[in-house]
Amino acid sequence: MTQHLPAILAHINAEAPAAEARLCDWLRIPSISAQPAHAGDCRRAAEWMRDQLAAIGFTAGLRPTADHPVVVGHHPGPGPGAPHLLFYGHYDVQPADPLALWTSPPFEPAIVQGPHGPRVVARGAVDDKGQTMMWLEALRAWHAIAGGPPCRVTVLVEGEEEVGSPSLDAFLAANRAELAADVAVISDTGMWDIDTPAITTRLRGMVYAQIDLRAARRDLHSGLYGGSALNPINLLTRILGELQDDDGRVRIPGFYEGIAEIGPQQAAEWAALGFDEGAYLGDIGLSVPSGERDRAALERLWARPTADLNGIWGGYTGEGSKTVIAAEAHAKLSCRLVPGQDPARVAEGIRRFVAERLPADASAEVTILTTTPGIEVPAESRWVRAARVALAEEYGRPAVLIGSGGSIPVVESMRRLLGLNSLLVGFGLADDQVHSPNEKFELRCFHQGTRSHARMLAAFAG
Amino acid sequence: MTQHLPAILAHINAEAPAAEARLCDWLRIPSISAQPAHAGDCRRAAEWMRDQLAAIGFTAGLRPTADHPVVVGHHPGPGPGAPHLLFYGHYDVQPADPLALWTSPPFEPAIVQGPHGPRVVARGAVDDKGQTMMWLEALRAWHAIAGGPPCRVTVLVEGEEEVGSPSLDAFLAANRAELAADVAVISDTGMWDIDTPAITTRLRGMVYAQIDLRAARRDLHSGLYGGSALNPINLLTRILGELQDDDGRVRIPGFYEGIAEIGPQQAAEWAALGFDEGAYLGDIGLSVPSGERDRAALERLWARPTADLNGIWGGYTGEGSKTVIAAEAHAKLSCRLVPGQDPARVAEGIRRFVAERLPADASAEVTILTTTPGIEVPAESRWVRAARVALAEEYGRPAVLIGSGGSIPVVESMRRLLGLNSLLVGFGLADDQVHSPNEKFELRCFHQGTRSHARMLAAFAG
Repeated sequence: MTQHLPAILAHINAEAPAAEARLCDWLRIPSISAQPAHAGDCRRAAEWMRDQLAAIGFTAGLRPTADHPVVVGHHPGPGPGAPHLLFYGHYDVQPADPLALWTSPPFEPAIVQGPHGPRVVARGAVDDKGQTMMWLEALRAWHAIAGGPPCRVTVLVEGEEEVGSPSLDAFLAANRAELAADVAVISDTGMWDIDTPAITTRLRGMVYAQIDLRAARRDLHSGLYGGSALNPINLLTRILGELQDDDGRVRIPGFYEGIAEIGPQQAAEWAALGFDEGAYLGDIGLSVPSGERDRAALERLWARPTADLNGIWGGYTGEGSKTVIAAEAHAKLSCRLVPGQDPARVAEGIRRFVAERLPADASAEVTILTTTPGIEVPAESRWVRAARVALAEEYGRPAVLIGSGGSIPVVESMRRLLGLNSLLVGFGLADDQVHSPNEKFELRCFHQGTRSHARMLAAFAG
Repeated sequence: MTQHLPAILAHINAEAPAAEARLCDWLRIPSISAQPAHAGDCRRAAEWMRDQLAAIGFTAGLRPTADHPVVVGHHPGPGPGAPHLLFYGHYDVQPADPLALWTSPPFEPAIVQGPHGPRVVARGAVDDKGQTMMWLEALRAWHAIAGGPPCRVTVLVEGEEEVGSPSLDAFLAANRAELAADVAVISDTGMWDIDTPAITTRLRGMVYAQIDLRAARRDLHSGLYGGSALNPINLLTRILGELQDDDGRVRIPGFYEGIAEIGPQQAAEWAALGFDEGAYLGDIGLSVPSGERDRAALERLWARPTADLNGIWGGYTGEGSKTVIAAEAHAKLSCRLVPGQDPARVAEGIRRFVAERLPADASAEVTILTTTPGIEVPAESRWVRAARVALAEEYGRPAVLIGSGGSIPVVESMRRLLGLNSLLVGFGLADDQVHSPNEKFELRCFHQGTRSHARMLAAFAG
């Protein structure tokens, strides 16, 4: 099928402005899965994707879940016997707050000049609408020039990724036969830098917990009770202030059990990448690495677990002063996990960590909101080999094999429920401000990513 | 003047239902000084008091400040040479939140039966509208029966007590001559129990601080940065978790400097009160005392300083999970102070405590919102002697001399700016839920307090 490739790449180049306009159309739909008020927008974003697939020869439809629908599409490609790919993406986005920090409205995509040329600024620009659009545009070009993709293709685009994909496992399990494929292809990760493509082979997992402490049965006057009554906010800081020791090691019982240390070859490969942690931190206004003191930077980010407080609240938080001893105090804690850690054990460790520090009169409720294990995908396979060829042709240099500090739970779900390994080829950059105000996607990444997907389709078929 | 007293007490008894109705009228005005939307209500509460004073022979008016007006009234009493009393109260109240925990709307006073008979439930019921109304009703009875009080009386009712009285010092300084008196009489403290009246001779002061920590220049994705970037919420818990050592001693540098230990006689008197800390804590659902391990209960509450976190916030605090490393984290900290501590030194100690624990890359802003020293007022004076006589007659048992863990900054201001000592005779109970939902005032306390004030007026004149 490689004979079509030059025309397909030329078509992608010619179509670039139209592809950008389509991406902006999708970005204008505020499909925030966490907020019930946006349920209708989530549905619109799903319908938009369904219609795009239908326009390029897919049989596509919306499939209901308990909350936001899943878009599923199928294309027979050249027919039975051809390699079968399952493309995964998500149409939902994170909440946009704090709104005041955006330089343009989050759901009015703005094309802005940056050091790498034009970029699109919007919530979802890269995570994951922009990344999903790349393979959609590659499939569109194959449709236009060759009448369809050179492989069998199944598409699965969900709308609950940003809230932990609560419906996905049940959906995969219930549709195992329909979703059968040879490999899953996912663009939700990053490049090494704008000139260097990357294939991600490690992802961290997560345990996300909410901790609710309670002491007295009502709020108290700090003058009348201060010196006698237990203060749950002081207690919360006392407990959570011990999460890390002075060397940055997490003190949750059993936290590091089962972790396989990375081997010397892996360490050497990552060292060869020449990661500049100073510059990485400098971009966000920091200079001194946090985390475990005795570990290399990329190991801390890709192969070591964390315990970060994502939120804390209690008592009076308004203007000025209120002299109250609150009855309750709360925190949200997420631990990023690495392969070998058992999420259930870590969850149990969090419960024990809190319980062991709880004095008489205080009660603690620990609610586990998410558990996903860290995961490693094969670094050697026909799919990885094909992707390396395609990426080297597009970028003129070899792709590097990297880890990611983030979590993509669907990778583990697809392995467990569909028996599928994933090929993780993404085109985001470290400064894309994912989950933050002014999220952006470089248009150069978008177009080269689209071309890379078009080339990978040929290489997979080849 | 004591010949009028039997008729005055009979009048107070006969007027009780009308006095309750008047108290409820005042309580219906939501005069929340902290909330700008209630500025008009604060003014209405002030006008209400002015009109009450005018109706019983006072020259009374509203005096502007930068925010809520002060009510000032004068009554010549029997004329020059008579003792001159300055009655102080405040018409403003705390915010009523959390509203959901009230059993009746906070500004619709409800008369409810309790173990001591009927009580009024409303925001401000005891703090300080109910307590202020007692001396107003006593003055009203003297007016009705004797044509006026037996002493010269100046009245000062402010509207910013619950926000730290920002305008009061300047007002006192500017009106020193007009506010001249022999002693200040204040009802904003408590009884020992419902049968035992009390005169308060010690009050704690306060330093109230807001602490704002900042790290990265924007919110970060906890997957992409966790293990490398400093988390300001983890840091906040690490710093504030060290506020107390394992024995409950506060670790702020220089915190205990200058405190005069209470003498053996004071300790013996307080021990003789037979305070049951177990019951005190049991009422609020607690069983184990907090605070300094080696100190007696009343000493911890009245003669030892505290460091209580009154509020904490940062990051994601909504439903579910958001995997963010926040850029900022915040807390509100109040230290109750005792005589001998220098509030400026404590404020400086808080700054040092935070600065000494601050790593590279984090910045901390410590804003001091309030500073008031702890204070002791004379336990021997003609005013205390007169009050003891009056209280013993009303209650049939002697009044006890106690401390209070709370702060009444005006006591220190009146001494410093007007050269006036205060006589602190209050009628609140420990379970009045001051500053909490379902604040209440026992009507028995209200009426016996009114009678006590009527008796004290006679005793002061005597």
